[in-house]
Amino acid sequence: MTQTPKNIAIIGSGLVGSLLAIYLRKKGHSVTVFDRRPDIRTIKFSGRSINLAMSNRGWRSLRKVGLEERIKEIAIPLDKRAMHVNDKPVYFQKYGKEGEAIWSISRGILNKKMIDLAEEAGAEFRFNEKVWDVNLPEAKIYTGETEKSEWKEYQYDIIFGCDGAFSRVRHKMQRRSRFDYSQDFIDVGYKELTIPANEDGTHKLDKNSFHIWPRGKFMLIAMPNIDGSFTCTLFLPFEGEVSFESIKTEEAARMFFAAYFPNVRKDIENLSQDFFKNPTSAMVTMKCYPWTYWDKVALVGDSAHAIVPFYGQGMNAGFEDIYVLNELMEAHGDDWSTIFEKYQEERKPNADAIAELSYRNFVEMSSKTADPKFLLQKKIEKWFSAKHPDKWIPVYSRVTFSERPYAEALAIGDEQESIMKEVLKMPNIESEWETKEVENKILGLLGDS
Amino acid sequence: MTQTPKNIAIIGSGLVGSLLAIYLRKKGHSVTVFDRRPDIRTIKFSGRSINLAMSNRGWRSLRKVGLEERIKEIAIPLDKRAMHVNDKPVYFQKYGKEGEAIWSISRGILNKKMIDLAEEAGAEFRFNEKVWDVNLPEAKIYTGETEKSEWKEYQYDIIFGCDGAFSRVRHKMQRRSRFDYSQDFIDVGYKELTIPANEDGTHKLDKNSFHIWPRGKFMLIAMPNIDGSFTCTLFLPFEGEVSFESIKTEEAARMFFAAYFPNVRKDIENLSQDFFKNPTSAMVTMKCYPWTYWDKVALVGDSAHAIVPFYGQGMNAGFEDIYVLNELMEAHGDDWSTIFEKYQEERKPNADAIAELSYRNFVEMSSKTADPKFLLQKKIEKWFSAKHPDKWIPVYSRVTFSERPYAEALAIGDEQESIMKEVLKMPNIESEWETKEVENKILGLLGDS
Repeated sequence: MTQTPKNIAIIGSGLVGSLLAIYLRKKGHSVTVFDRRPDIRTIKFSGRSINLAMSNRGWRSLRKVGLEERIKEIAIPLDKRAMHVNDKPVYFQKYGKEGEAIWSISRGILNKKMIDLAEEAGAEFRFNEKVWDVNLPEAKIYTGETEKSEWKEYQYDIIFGCDGAFSRVRHKMQRRSRFDYSQDFIDVGYKELTIPANEDGTHKLDKNSFHIWPRGKFMLIAMPNIDGSFTCTLFLPFEGEVSFESIKTEEAARMFFAAYFPNVRKDIENLSQDFFKNPTSAMVTMKCYPWTYWDKVALVGDSAHAIVPFYGQGMNAGFEDIYVLNELMEAHGDDWSTIFEKYQEERKPNADAIAELSYRNFVEMSSKTADPKFLLQKKIEKWFSAKHPDKWIPVYSRVTFSERPYAEALAIGDEQESIMKEVLKMPNIESEWETKEVENKILGLLGDS
Repeated sequence: MTQTPKNIAIIGSGLVGSLLAIYLRKKGHSVTVFDRRPDIRTIKFSGRSINLAMSNRGWRSLRKVGLEERIKEIAIPLDKRAMHVNDKPVYFQKYGKEGEAIWSISRGILNKKMIDLAEEAGAEFRFNEKVWDVNLPEAKIYTGETEKSEWKEYQYDIIFGCDGAFSRVRHKMQRRSRFDYSQDFIDVGYKELTIPANEDGTHKLDKNSFHIWPRGKFMLIAMPNIDGSFTCTLFLPFEGEVSFESIKTEEAARMFFAAYFPNVRKDIENLSQDFFKNPTSAMVTMKCYPWTYWDKVALVGDSAHAIVPFYGQGMNAGFEDIYVLNELMEAHGDDWSTIFEKYQEERKPNADAIAELSYRNFVEMSSKTADPKFLLQKKIEKWFSAKHPDKWIPVYSRVTFSERPYAEALAIGDEQESIMKEVLKMPNIESEWETKEVENKILGLLGDS
């Protein structure tokens, strides 16, 4: 269905804001994108980002507007995890089946590219223009230097809030009665660190792997960039024995890296300097509802559902919001009330599901990776799944390599958990799990469900 | 321990703000209370309040500063529920043991009285002065006509946010990183209605009862005032077949009252008019953490923990916050960092517990009062509790007639629930529950726990 061209404002020029601008331009709408920050193409990065892992949902959203190939040029496929456990050689875990991979992309490089593409598509960008207030029923926005300065008023037909976890647009919706909202921080923070390229520009570690140094309560990860460097992220408790608070000097940082990450020894100087140069960031799960106001305002991406990064799905979920919005625009044309109503109804349970899955992955990584029972369970699941790939698709694959709803992945994952709970009760399961008996037990339990 | 006099601001002149002012004046501090609204003593009420039910925790907090007797003058003791079920005579349920009662007080009358008492104690009140911003580390507040007008700056030593569920002080704390926050609205709203006194000034219904007309998805309650009237509260879903949305005319309101509340027939005209005169209000559970900022700012009462009103504990919990704060001031003198740290650590689990209990009471009233299994459980509990009053104190009594922590009441209530779950599994329990066997079963399960 075609749509009557509207005058649309997007608040936020991040990944979601710029992709939405491209979609809306394709539909013939006028699009102005406001951002309180300067043009990211003109500045150095913040030193606070985690590399992105684009997976199927993200690619599908880009493919729909013909951008998949252009973005793959700046991405590196990772088909496996590389596990760095002390006193053991690095070992690799394939993510999925042959040909399945997640793609590492630098947030800064992708964001610049997306803004370029949105401009090519005819969107107007207004950087350094801060939105302080929104009149929801009249779709007006107010911008100005500070909250107390003179404001400029703009009138639009529709406003999209793509302004992230601390969204100003949502902030305004939050003041209405009957708006549900929650923000929950975890006790772990993160810091961006860099492993530079070799002198010849090649990568210092296998470039087609997602590198993980799991250390119980903390963890280092590294994802490759196209310039040969790795963007690393150190996840560490804010407070406690080994924590951001406890590491006070470069000397202490060097000792920390040497003790826990001996195989990155050569880069310790660099890592230790980054440790004090880059900020420590917090991670939050943010949920809210409703996401829309009449046919006037809608929240998309992190402004509607911010999640912790442990499933690598934040951007993918935001891009999928846009894909779904677009399908609804095609189905309902100018009936924006219906588009927005169906959008929030369809997306809310899926956003809640990926929030839950991401939080569970955090708990799993912090506390379960050393639990022999947990590791046994994972081994049995892998073994069974290899025998019956049609009957047991792991949740990770359902989230990462499929386009089925997140809520479905969560529900099936819960079923699989309860099946495995029964299996782990079987006598001598620790030693005798590669058996016909275990296989039949699982098949039987799958039949029941 | 004595304290060095401080210059203290309290934001909010409600019940908690004015009681806290009295406590702080007793300790010798200078106290200024700011309120964005006009002096409640000079205006008509909002028509949106539910009568208060003062119980043990509230009385203890008043007694500590010598106010119990003065407030009892404006309160009416209710020692029982009066249940109005259609086609049945009204029946009564005692709340507790002989002498145990909750006390009905009009919010407006109590608030006026508390402000009088705080002024007597030497607190200064600044009404119609709106606080728009707070500088947390420097304990400064900014007031003005509007958010964008010229602001006046005040410097204090300590600031208390007693400004309710939509607290401006908390709003400022919420913008900090790692501040956990949630607001959850229920789908039921409420409306204040009035049953006036008889012409001779007496009450139309038994004045020492809390009157309830349970109707499944909705409910009417009535609590007496000292002038002979009753303040009624109608709890009703916002949307749906029988809902605030579905009752659009005075005619429809009259039919609604006639159909569902025939025994208040004489007052239908009045109730139906009130229905359209008074606003419909929403109910929210609000949780947050932390509650304090260094030794500078603390949230007290609803600003820290707003709950749904179905346990009648909102004000009692707020008054108990003050009681605990006072104990900590006596223990730690001028060490306000410790006072605030211990205050939030001690109160947070108790605030969460009463939030949970209040929400459960809402669910119980909306969906369980018609469930025969639930009613059977209540009968068995009552029977056993009468036999063994020392072994089975109902949660309601623990919350209402005790001063033990709310968290303890919740935990013991959960134990009691799991015991009753076992008991209800006993064969023929529907018919044979007044037996030695059931008694021994419960005693046995109590022994285990």
